[in-house]
Amino acid sequence: MRDLVNAKHTVFGYNRSVSGTRAAVKEGFEVSGNLEEVLRHAEEVAATIVVAVPMHAVAEVLDAIVEHAPSCGITDVVSVKKPVYDLILERGLENRYVGGHPMAGTEKSGWGASHEGLFEGAAWVVTYDYPLECEKKDQPVPAEWIDLFTNVVQIILGAKAEAIPVSVRAHDEAVGRVSHLPHVVAEALSIVGDNGGTLAQSLAAGSFKDATRVAGTAPELVRAMCETNAKALVYSLDEMIEILQEARDNLDSADPDISEFVDAGHRAHTRLEARTGARRESVSPIKISSRPVMRLHPGGPGWVRQLVQAEDLGGRIEIF
Amino acid sequence: MRDLVNAKHTVFGYNRSVSGTRAAVKEGFEVSGNLEEVLRHAEEVAATIVVAVPMHAVAEVLDAIVEHAPSCGITDVVSVKKPVYDLILERGLENRYVGGHPMAGTEKSGWGASHEGLFEGAAWVVTYDYPLECEKKDQPVPAEWIDLFTNVVQIILGAKAEAIPVSVRAHDEAVGRVSHLPHVVAEALSIVGDNGGTLAQSLAAGSFKDATRVAGTAPELVRAMCETNAKALVYSLDEMIEILQEARDNLDSADPDISEFVDAGHRAHTRLEARTGARRESVSPIKISSRPVMRLHPGGPGWVRQLVQAEDLGGRIEIF
Repeated sequence: MRDLVNAKHTVFGYNRSVSGTRAAVKEGFEVSGNLEEVLRHAEEVAATIVVAVPMHAVAEVLDAIVEHAPSCGITDVVSVKKPVYDLILERGLENRYVGGHPMAGTEKSGWGASHEGLFEGAAWVVTYDYPLECEKKDQPVPAEWIDLFTNVVQIILGAKAEAIPVSVRAHDEAVGRVSHLPHVVAEALSIVGDNGGTLAQSLAAGSFKDATRVAGTAPELVRAMCETNAKALVYSLDEMIEILQEARDNLDSADPDISEFVDAGHRAHTRLEARTGARRESVSPIKISSRPVMRLHPGGPGWVRQLVQAEDLGGRIEIF
Repeated sequence: MRDLVNAKHTVFGYNRSVSGTRAAVKEGFEVSGNLEEVLRHAEEVAATIVVAVPMHAVAEVLDAIVEHAPSCGITDVVSVKKPVYDLILERGLENRYVGGHPMAGTEKSGWGASHEGLFEGAAWVVTYDYPLECEKKDQPVPAEWIDLFTNVVQIILGAKAEAIPVSVRAHDEAVGRVSHLPHVVAEALSIVGDNGGTLAQSLAAGSFKDATRVAGTAPELVRAMCETNAKALVYSLDEMIEILQEARDNLDSADPDISEFVDAGHRAHTRLEARTGARRESVSPIKISSRPVMRLHPGGPGWVRQLVQAEDLGGRIEIF
């Protein structure tokens, strides 16, 4: 909301939290605690609705949208996509839904924890399962969906993030690996550190603090993301446990040598640093994204194929 | 060196790296690439020697000290203490050695990566196994050792760190848990993330990057700390793997519920945040350490007992 107002979008919203609503209004934002009113207003002005609630609250919000804003386009920022898409399909909303997931955030929650620029340079996933389905059935993608997709990409660019097209299944697999797994690891590492008592606690420094930062996230949010993406998470947890077990067995041998493991980790880290949107310093003052870009025209010839190509590369899209 | 020069200590040193030596000299520091000369100079002025080399180079440096600076006091900053202490005992240097380990650093190495203020507020372990041994044998602690201990604590306070007395064994157990384990976890998590290919790499954000930051550490340094502290590390790795396995099994069940695990991780994180020397903001502009302080007089009645008490609390010492 802060970023889009800055980018001259008209934005209004609903917040369940009374104190959060009051704080936003005090700062001059158009926020209300009356969901029905906000949704009717959205319907009147044909707004695009951004659902930004934890997974367990999505169904209720979608039901309210069906009732009070029956023709608005919908996107969301929930960190799992299949459970949301299931709710969308149950309600037959797939022709007016584009899933979203900004890969940015902190361990804090609520309006008071929001700040401008959080999404700058971040990957922001946009899902496109609906046009894939249309193509399979040899049906044209409806113009309304194409317009919504364009709107959602403009919202993302308005927040200075990078739009990455990803199908629902591929999204959940990838974020199980690079987002939900780090949360589980942070919780486990916090417990092991704490087991060391006051001395270990006193000696914990940078490597420990950084690795456990996200264990400060509200437990219900961590549960929501991990439990609803359990299948993908189990898969990457198995990989993680196997790698740790191998390192452990090596360290337990008469003459430990973990060079292969450490070299592999270091190489992986180097590759990831180069690819995770870390903006390279160049001679020019303009920052350059490390993600490959694909310029496409929504609805144009072969545009869905282009989305698939961008997904394979983890690339970002620009729209013309 | 930067911090101690700032604190008006006289500091000079040796650096094996030609470019590092040149850069330091250019900045006005007294650094030389001639180890023998530097050690002779140290002997002349009765300097306290800080050994700041990777574990595999410690034996060689100690041999040079025995030859060229036979009466200087010695401390070190190596991240394991038992392997260093074994080398000290082999050479009969225990009466002029106080082990050290500053719990601060980055994933970068070399003179160019050094900066002032790195140690501010950090825990800096000082070992005291020698006076414990003296007490066991009912022998007085030699005045030379007491003076060296006082010197080392003053060096630590000069770097604005906090001196935490810890015996060699307890140190290696604690840092296995809160420092070496996070390094192993960061390597493993980097490999799992990288296995996700370009899409996962592109989507990796804050939680992943923070958790894997130290995988950017030079592999030989990671090997040195982990392989030389293998026993303690295996112990905490077993704890880690067991906790991850339990979470994994729960997530793999028909109705995943990891509330107990996530709540435990969150509680542990909260406790650790309060204890790891995070300086609380108070009304006064003076920052207050969260570590309990014990003021003691080295060599005074019961002072070794006071060191043991401080260790149990993870507390810092001040000297009068």
